[in-house]
Amino acid sequence: MSAHFDTLRRAPLPDLRAEIRSGRYRGHTAGLGAGYLQANIVILPGAVALDFMRFCQRNPKPCPLVGVSDTGEPMMRTLGRDIDIRTDVPAYNIYRHGRLEGSVTDIADLWTPDMVAFALGCSFTFEHALIRAGIPLWHVTHDTTVPMFRTAIPCVPAGAFRSPMVVSMRAIDPDRVAEAVALSRRYPLAHGAPVHVGDPSEIGIADTARPDWGDPAPITGDQVPVFWACGVTPQAAIEAAAPPLCITHKPGHMLITDIPEDAETPVLAPETA
Amino acid sequence: MSAHFDTLRRAPLPDLRAEIRSGRYRGHTAGLGAGYLQANIVILPGAVALDFMRFCQRNPKPCPLVGVSDTGEPMMRTLGRDIDIRTDVPAYNIYRHGRLEGSVTDIADLWTPDMVAFALGCSFTFEHALIRAGIPLWHVTHDTTVPMFRTAIPCVPAGAFRSPMVVSMRAIDPDRVAEAVALSRRYPLAHGAPVHVGDPSEIGIADTARPDWGDPAPITGDQVPVFWACGVTPQAAIEAAAPPLCITHKPGHMLITDIPEDAETPVLAPETA
Repeated sequence: MSAHFDTLRRAPLPDLRAEIRSGRYRGHTAGLGAGYLQANIVILPGAVALDFMRFCQRNPKPCPLVGVSDTGEPMMRTLGRDIDIRTDVPAYNIYRHGRLEGSVTDIADLWTPDMVAFALGCSFTFEHALIRAGIPLWHVTHDTTVPMFRTAIPCVPAGAFRSPMVVSMRAIDPDRVAEAVALSRRYPLAHGAPVHVGDPSEIGIADTARPDWGDPAPITGDQVPVFWACGVTPQAAIEAAAPPLCITHKPGHMLITDIPEDAETPVLAPETA
Repeated sequence: MSAHFDTLRRAPLPDLRAEIRSGRYRGHTAGLGAGYLQANIVILPGAVALDFMRFCQRNPKPCPLVGVSDTGEPMMRTLGRDIDIRTDVPAYNIYRHGRLEGSVTDIADLWTPDMVAFALGCSFTFEHALIRAGIPLWHVTHDTTVPMFRTAIPCVPAGAFRSPMVVSMRAIDPDRVAEAVALSRRYPLAHGAPVHVGDPSEIGIADTARPDWGDPAPITGDQVPVFWACGVTPQAAIEAAAPPLCITHKPGHMLITDIPEDAETPVLAPETA
């Protein structure tokens, strides 16, 4: 862990955001902004924004919508007092016609007046709850990326957005599975309860040792593989829809919001006059 | 209570829906479709659909979105196997340029290919949970409409949609307030936890005996007035936005869906091939 990262871990939110905005910090956000909601980001042309928003509404476990910008408005006003979606994500992926073109740390030159930015809740929120409850997570302990798999579970399509569900896997000791299910169900804006517990083949996963994204993680002894809906799902739907331009966060490099992780709703109270 | 209503109370969901679809039943839906999610309905031209959907996302307590149709598609596929939004609500209100024009029991002749139908969760869900827990609700016991009030709490605007929050009031015995709060918080798609407990003047309500909508209900002895975000809020926002045409359910005359009231998400699993 770098000295810079260690300083950022303890930094107040505005200082952390300034480091990201300036481009001085371009790394992943796991472990940063403790206690605040982090979000996956999808930025799309207005012409497909309603369809994408319907895709999220219809698939709330993989795509829990926590914020949507006005068309052409880069400030995410419901998620923070000063969040500029063009600069406040540490790294972005650029997709053209559904294909990854490259990564950048600032999208000010790509932002156009027809764009809509969507923020989706991420797994950090329920992982923090599991860890607080003393349920160990192998990929956190070993500082790897959680293993993710394409499944046979269909998402509900919306317009050109369609995809099988992508899930992440965490191996849980059998006596803690019920608790892990109940705890994560309390966070509907962070994927909620698992979509499957147990036999991976029942949801079309052939080999848990070979994830489609992320790093392999062992299932040891009598541990049970538990599968949660995953925020990579919308990326698969975007590949299918192939809009002329789409900008997402780079995986692991999330938007850190001003919303407390345990907020009932992910909306800043409006300033009253 | 009419013999027809009493028969409908015990009818299977498809029979109940057929009675409503045919126009034979045009009454309110409180007490019908026990155990199934009921929804407020807002139907708007596609041109303002994204703004209205953003209004709902930003104000999830008064406007908990549970379903959105494809543009021009009257079947609400995520809410039921056979729900036609043109016929399956017992009565509709028609608004032109934000003003109530009248009520009808069928909108087949008003439906156009640019329309989008929105379904929003309603208070019946958490009221059923309170009643099951033995917390009496005066307006249910006395078969009146819950009192509703315009407040000083601002909603977050989206496009031309803007409104103060409308709330409903229920008087609760002081020893049950904490339980009522905790129980309703479990239903984020049915307005969630109260937005205010106690002194009505703190949220801009001058006189609880004179509701803006619904019937007055007493606050007796040491009962505490408890205020929940209310599904009338979007009607106020629609009056402000004044779209050329807007169709809503007639208050109390909800869409009855195929979704169990305790479902984690309000989405029917897609049929797999």
